[in-house]
Amino acid sequence: MTAAGTSVNGARLWDSLMRMAQIGATSKGGCNRQALTDLDRAGRELFTGWCRELGCAIEVDALGNIFARRVGRDDAAPVVMTGSHLDTQPTGGRFDGVYGVLAGLEVFRTLEDKAIPTERPLELVVWTNEEGYRFDPAMMGSGVFAGVFPAEEILDKRDRDGLRLGDELARIGYAGRRPARPPGPIAAYLEAHIEQGPVLEQRGKTIGIVTGAQGIRAVELSIRGQEAHAGPTPMEMRRDALLPAARIALEINRIARARPDGRGTLGELRVRPGSRNIVPGEAYLMIDLRHPDSDELEAMHQELRAYVEQLAREAHPECAFEWLGTWLSPVVPFDPQVVARVRQSAQRRGYACQDIVSGAGHDACYLARVAPTAMIFVPCEGGISHNEAESARPEDLEAGCNVLLDALLASAGASD
Amino acid sequence: MTAAGTSVNGARLWDSLMRMAQIGATSKGGCNRQALTDLDRAGRELFTGWCRELGCAIEVDALGNIFARRVGRDDAAPVVMTGSHLDTQPTGGRFDGVYGVLAGLEVFRTLEDKAIPTERPLELVVWTNEEGYRFDPAMMGSGVFAGVFPAEEILDKRDRDGLRLGDELARIGYAGRRPARPPGPIAAYLEAHIEQGPVLEQRGKTIGIVTGAQGIRAVELSIRGQEAHAGPTPMEMRRDALLPAARIALEINRIARARPDGRGTLGELRVRPGSRNIVPGEAYLMIDLRHPDSDELEAMHQELRAYVEQLAREAHPECAFEWLGTWLSPVVPFDPQVVARVRQSAQRRGYACQDIVSGAGHDACYLARVAPTAMIFVPCEGGISHNEAESARPEDLEAGCNVLLDALLASAGASD
Repeated sequence: MTAAGTSVNGARLWDSLMRMAQIGATSKGGCNRQALTDLDRAGRELFTGWCRELGCAIEVDALGNIFARRVGRDDAAPVVMTGSHLDTQPTGGRFDGVYGVLAGLEVFRTLEDKAIPTERPLELVVWTNEEGYRFDPAMMGSGVFAGVFPAEEILDKRDRDGLRLGDELARIGYAGRRPARPPGPIAAYLEAHIEQGPVLEQRGKTIGIVTGAQGIRAVELSIRGQEAHAGPTPMEMRRDALLPAARIALEINRIARARPDGRGTLGELRVRPGSRNIVPGEAYLMIDLRHPDSDELEAMHQELRAYVEQLAREAHPECAFEWLGTWLSPVVPFDPQVVARVRQSAQRRGYACQDIVSGAGHDACYLARVAPTAMIFVPCEGGISHNEAESARPEDLEAGCNVLLDALLASAGASD
Repeated sequence: MTAAGTSVNGARLWDSLMRMAQIGATSKGGCNRQALTDLDRAGRELFTGWCRELGCAIEVDALGNIFARRVGRDDAAPVVMTGSHLDTQPTGGRFDGVYGVLAGLEVFRTLEDKAIPTERPLELVVWTNEEGYRFDPAMMGSGVFAGVFPAEEILDKRDRDGLRLGDELARIGYAGRRPARPPGPIAAYLEAHIEQGPVLEQRGKTIGIVTGAQGIRAVELSIRGQEAHAGPTPMEMRRDALLPAARIALEINRIARARPDGRGTLGELRVRPGSRNIVPGEAYLMIDLRHPDSDELEAMHQELRAYVEQLAREAHPECAFEWLGTWLSPVVPFDPQVVARVRQSAQRRGYACQDIVSGAGHDACYLARVAPTAMIFVPCEGGISHNEAESARPEDLEAGCNVLLDALLASAGASD
């Protein structure tokens, strides 16, 4: 049997997705399988059982990340990795994360079925706590693996009930012995995922060739005016904190729309005291700017700052503006060679495809720091995710899995 | 002794205000004397004791409104009334309401000191529960007196602990026997009050000649878009409910500023779900428009409606706009003749004065339905009220009290 022209079994992939979805299934058709709960353990057990059936060796690292290894002909060569996460939001769906793990499993099963060896070893990974709902931060397991967070600090994190992450890992039997960092060089990392956005569906594409992830500039702003009674206070004597906030909301939109790949969102706007007959004395804004290009992102940020400073000087000198904080999640460029393997597969198989930039965070964003990385997106219905209504079509999931198969084989050196 | 040229005793007025302020005094210098509490009873007892010292007959009506009567030479003639309220907000000040009651008391004391009779009888009234904090609605006692609310319905109101208003009135000994409606025609009603706004202070005026009260048009609006992830969702695919809300906030401001006496406030703006990385799917707006002229108020309302309808058609067809409700508090014109007596007094005494429209609700707004009514405003520091920091200057309070004296004498027929 040769690798070229091999395809995965889409029905088996779908069946596995549906079996995993039973663990933590919600009444609305979603999934609640939060990190390091008994349900997370059950999901992990189902997964490792499937991997053992394929003859994979299972290793677990200090953060509970699971590595299922398929030996290569040159097993000492740099490993090719794929994976994602099994944990969900409390009202999560059946595909976010799980698809990347089980698409990898389906690739492993296909390789076993067809007895296709690879030159380099393959590892299928389940990253611990990608969602970051029960334990902060998100993308925790991949972050420690990539050296973003120190393992000791993360193991001491506590959930809302005060339970310690390290203890919870041990309780569910996933405090492993493998060190939390890469044991050696990684040849490539590939991750399949639902898009979690509306672009592919609206443009009728099956495959998104993910070239990288947007950078995020978050900015926190406080505007202080003066509370006043809405009746007795003439307009010209007011210090209404909402008016500059409204202008800023519109300017954020303008700045983002001035660039094809720009995003600008004012998702959090709190107006105090929030009573019909009181002129707002305070407004709190949490602003989110995104762009796939670092320079453009910085330009958006500077435009916003300049606008607010002008507002404070000219249109609203009656209010006090204070930057409370800012943080940057840098642009993540994926590896052009690995991205090219994804593109070649999608084109060769004749899937409708396009380049796309990830707007959400993924384990791959951290993996890109320690491995040549790429991602494969498939559409999800209405772009809806982090929601029990999350849905994806079996044929799209199968197509993404075929691209993952091709790109993994290209990275690992298939023996035709 | 003749009435002309008589003045009140400002020091005595201040002393009485400060004695009343001890009942329910807060650590921050304010007052917490909520309606029908033991503290309210204590305030009422202090007041009625002072009135009895002057030889006034005290009557209490079914709503607990207190009437202290000073006989007229023609005691069957229509009565001239003055008063306000003794209850406060939980973090209220020392002057809101109390000043109107004790300014009336100081007028009575001055008339006794100088042995000045009036042709018509005078009644000094304490209206029950003006603030409406413990029991809803506000201006309750004066509202029943003016026929706005049925007494039986109001007596059945309950506070947050389920205590019935009628029972609480009886408990503090103020469920009186006098019927809750006017026993006969009222010649005039005058009420002195702190402005609760910044106009007089900022313009350096001592007396506000209140010509009426603004009408209020409140409008509730819901805007529905679609929650979406702030990263993956391109700007042109969004249905962001905050953007039209921001435009409406600015338009409310424009509509109000287009008229010298207009007021427009967006005091309540709630954005959901309210998370940095989620495009707002819903906005709730509670809009407050005010004007002293009914036609202008209606024109403001129609301009707002037209703007929102155009927004829904043209700029934001991606969102659904729904008017949830609206209510009108009509414009209250005060009586030109009674207002003229206030103006004449202020001018004759040489006080810096100006006409002003009340932006807040007062017992006088309901009294205007059953009596020729006017109000006298004095400045309060920074326009701050409903706040423990509420403050007013003794000399301004004295000036307002002198104007009340003059206007009451002019209404009641002083015997020079």
